[in-house]
Amino acid sequence: MSAIPQDFVKQTARLSDEITQPFPGSRKIHVPGSRTDIQVPMREVTLASTQTSAGTEDNPPITLYDTSGPYTDPEASIDLMKGLPALREVWIQERDNTEQLEGPSSEFGRARADDPELASLRFEHIRAPRRARPGHNITQMHYARQGIVTPEMEFVAIRENCRLQEMRADPRYAALLRQHPGESFGAHIPEVITPEFVRDEVAAGRAVIPANINHPELEPMIIGRNFRVKINTNIGNSSLTSSISEEVEKLVWSCRWGGDTLMDLSTGKNIHETREWVLRNSPVPIGTVPIYQALEKVAGKAEDLTWELFRDTLIEQAEQGVDYFTIHAGVLLRYVPLTAQRLTGIVSRGGSIMAKWCLAHHEENFLYTHFEDICEIMKAYDVAFSLGDGLRPGSLADANDAAQFAELETLGELTRIAWEHDVQVMIEGPGHVPLHRVKENVEKELADCFEAPFYTLGPLVTDVAPAYDHITSGIGAANIGWYGTAMLCYVTPKEHLGLPDKEDVRDGIITYRIAAHAADLAKGFPGAQVRDNALSKARFEFRWQDQFNLSLDPERARVFHDETLPKESHKVA
Amino acid sequence: MSAIPQDFVKQTARLSDEITQPFPGSRKIHVPGSRTDIQVPMREVTLASTQTSAGTEDNPPITLYDTSGPYTDPEASIDLMKGLPALREVWIQERDNTEQLEGPSSEFGRARADDPELASLRFEHIRAPRRARPGHNITQMHYARQGIVTPEMEFVAIRENCRLQEMRADPRYAALLRQHPGESFGAHIPEVITPEFVRDEVAAGRAVIPANINHPELEPMIIGRNFRVKINTNIGNSSLTSSISEEVEKLVWSCRWGGDTLMDLSTGKNIHETREWVLRNSPVPIGTVPIYQALEKVAGKAEDLTWELFRDTLIEQAEQGVDYFTIHAGVLLRYVPLTAQRLTGIVSRGGSIMAKWCLAHHEENFLYTHFEDICEIMKAYDVAFSLGDGLRPGSLADANDAAQFAELETLGELTRIAWEHDVQVMIEGPGHVPLHRVKENVEKELADCFEAPFYTLGPLVTDVAPAYDHITSGIGAANIGWYGTAMLCYVTPKEHLGLPDKEDVRDGIITYRIAAHAADLAKGFPGAQVRDNALSKARFEFRWQDQFNLSLDPERARVFHDETLPKESHKVA
Repeated sequence: MSAIPQDFVKQTARLSDEITQPFPGSRKIHVPGSRTDIQVPMREVTLASTQTSAGTEDNPPITLYDTSGPYTDPEASIDLMKGLPALREVWIQERDNTEQLEGPSSEFGRARADDPELASLRFEHIRAPRRARPGHNITQMHYARQGIVTPEMEFVAIRENCRLQEMRADPRYAALLRQHPGESFGAHIPEVITPEFVRDEVAAGRAVIPANINHPELEPMIIGRNFRVKINTNIGNSSLTSSISEEVEKLVWSCRWGGDTLMDLSTGKNIHETREWVLRNSPVPIGTVPIYQALEKVAGKAEDLTWELFRDTLIEQAEQGVDYFTIHAGVLLRYVPLTAQRLTGIVSRGGSIMAKWCLAHHEENFLYTHFEDICEIMKAYDVAFSLGDGLRPGSLADANDAAQFAELETLGELTRIAWEHDVQVMIEGPGHVPLHRVKENVEKELADCFEAPFYTLGPLVTDVAPAYDHITSGIGAANIGWYGTAMLCYVTPKEHLGLPDKEDVRDGIITYRIAAHAADLAKGFPGAQVRDNALSKARFEFRWQDQFNLSLDPERARVFHDETLPKESHKVA
Repeated sequence: MSAIPQDFVKQTARLSDEITQPFPGSRKIHVPGSRTDIQVPMREVTLASTQTSAGTEDNPPITLYDTSGPYTDPEASIDLMKGLPALREVWIQERDNTEQLEGPSSEFGRARADDPELASLRFEHIRAPRRARPGHNITQMHYARQGIVTPEMEFVAIRENCRLQEMRADPRYAALLRQHPGESFGAHIPEVITPEFVRDEVAAGRAVIPANINHPELEPMIIGRNFRVKINTNIGNSSLTSSISEEVEKLVWSCRWGGDTLMDLSTGKNIHETREWVLRNSPVPIGTVPIYQALEKVAGKAEDLTWELFRDTLIEQAEQGVDYFTIHAGVLLRYVPLTAQRLTGIVSRGGSIMAKWCLAHHEENFLYTHFEDICEIMKAYDVAFSLGDGLRPGSLADANDAAQFAELETLGELTRIAWEHDVQVMIEGPGHVPLHRVKENVEKELADCFEAPFYTLGPLVTDVAPAYDHITSGIGAANIGWYGTAMLCYVTPKEHLGLPDKEDVRDGIITYRIAAHAADLAKGFPGAQVRDNALSKARFEFRWQDQFNLSLDPERARVFHDETLPKESHKVA
């Protein structure tokens, strides 16, 4: 019998109906790969036909990239208590280069596992962690550099294409495939994404497939500027709010609206247990900022942080399955004075923690001095780096300044080191930047960091609109995505003001899906315009239901329409 | 005694409290010009001082551009029944080149004035219209070309500067005046806007001051790419909804949140009377699309439109005081077939009316063939042209196509003709355009239309987000503003779906204020970054009230903050 109290079980086991119902007019499909266990989920929207004077004209179904995981699949049986199926498990086992440990190898992980007081919170079906066998490198980058196409690579190739080849072969799609040639600023997006192209991009470091061997539940995805622009969302409890079930619900909600990856930024209680629930139920890669948890372990005193404590935290989280770590290893002691004349100093939480530590000890950042040790840990699980921009500007005034760009150069130096270990890397970027200085950020990142994928927060293009910073930053995000940023970290309307609720999360995600899609269109990603064309055709023909169903947020589009024109007849005019 | 029923009086005379209360922490100021009756309204935000280890540091007040008119001035007595004070009346009279008519000279205007059934709706204090005396040209462009600086020009010069010179002379503002140099793509923005610079820009046709001599209530403003980027909002009743008092309330609401001009797109009942109420109470220029009203006069049958009817409508509206007319004179008969292969045909309402007329009669567009006649009417009142883009794309697929650009060239030809009459001109633009093809629109407009101010709707950078089209278009708007567009026509979340309510209008306006401000920053408009710097400083110092009060929407910023952290102590940390 379960040690978990029944009310918690009930609460956690049932997601709100609104977040799991399938999208209207849509069905989940699975596009098969070269082996039977490669089944790439997509969403297919069925459309009504058009009445013309000559009779009816068929409108073929539209295939959409789908981040929602099994939650929107009526065929899937969801049991949050057990977690999602481990779809990558066989692939990982087959490679025969990892070993299953007896239990957590971190001190903290063992202590939490052994604590009887946590029984009521703990996920029940914890797998023993898996780790690379000594002498083996098990990262996707390593395979790619060996010329190996992994099932993960094939999965993402099929996923990126969204049945483009089938559409090209079908004359019904000819008009829908019309698209403006893109302007990609040096990106090289092929007409079709092949598994070999995925491999080559990962090998070159231009793309990342975050896929920890301890997170076999995830549906592989890729982050790189020659692929679709991705978006990240953030969740996390705090000392003020949130239970485990709320965090799991936020995760599913994020996937539903289109979050490609998710960062768990928890700083409250039971971070370890919350993370386990999130990972076991997440179809998307999960990122964390390990220094946040490390700081909790020293009761918030930055100067008490040590390498040993941080190391244990990395292992703890890697063995749970975190797919990428934000590591602020570029905040060097000598850069801190560069921020003295800033309007808004250091606003990155990780950056200010490390700056405080450096100044307190007058020593170099231990994340920098131990960077090779960190690589050794991360490659044993295939955790990707997200090299943090601890000195990012917190205001327009501080954008593109000496502190920011000095750190960026150091991130480039660290990228090279990580790549020597075949550890995957992406680079975090700002923040707050006026529109005309956004491009410079991408150009500098590509040059300094050897085209490692850029992953930016916004940027906000003005500071004057708190409560609308999803929009101020969505403008920057669309532009920076167009220029070559691979992933956009979302911002919600509550940024700078408070903690986002579910509707804020939805607003933030849709805004960022808009930005990412606008960037794909501008870069000329093949097939990106099909959805726009199909929706515009539906609009022009007054096929209201099709217009709603093809939109990024079918529910809100329908509600807004019905506020003015609620009658059914107004939807079929 | 008034013929207007008391309930209507009450309803119309009282604006909702929420739309007239002054902004928190702000006071209305008036910056004087060279003569005592030039008093330029601005908003001054008072800030708390900063506590430092050395004591307190003064934070000087910030001056903001203010579109809200007398409504946010506690000193002003507002009486909607009487209308706003006619602040330009003396300037117009002094020029001694106009005559006051005995009454409306349009047939329709006279019929409405004489109709006893309209007594209950009619604005009571209708002034007899004023018109240029024969042989006189009374447009701002004409004065400018004669080398004359009008009070209107001086007013806008002071307004654009927002006390920049005073700030430059005051050492307390030194840090706040830090700003990134802009990238303006050939715009020439001076360090200080002088009245002479305003005159020269108007003379060259690069800027427009919409200021009908029959709208003396307006606070002059300027539209041109060497000035602050402006935004337009739309209101209007329809056959479904809205009363006169609602339209007046929407007007005041629009001015409150930052609408620089407003178009009355009414298509419902009593359009003439509604417009009178709106004009008499509007501190901002009012635009219309006269063909909409003309179509109402022929019961919606486009083929029944005639030049004579349209001419009468122009005079009717010009004598009421409309400041600019959208005229779809570029939709030529030979261009209509260019839209045949489009995904979404002709989506501009004015464009489709004129295309229908051209095809029904197989004759050239009468707005084109009578263009010189139209100029003669407009210059008699100083109504500015907003040359409509009747063939603008209704989807990404149709962006930048032959139909759109053919019409644009014709608009250039018409611009030259209007300028021969010294009639002011701006050019309307799209619509739906992918991000990377936005710039081409500005470049082509500047070239084809000789730098006449560009005035665009969005553009939307993707078609896939109905219910979020304020955002899809806000992204395009920020970019097109940066590239050189002078005014951005807002889009609300209800675009494509239904009629906006007050909250939709607010969301649309704030989104467009963000876009316009982002463009000003990117172009390097002098002093534009002061507000960002002051707000970011307040944020960094946890001066929450100052952060709210400096934001585009202080009310929502405060509400969002208080949802998570309602305590007063959380605002002064």
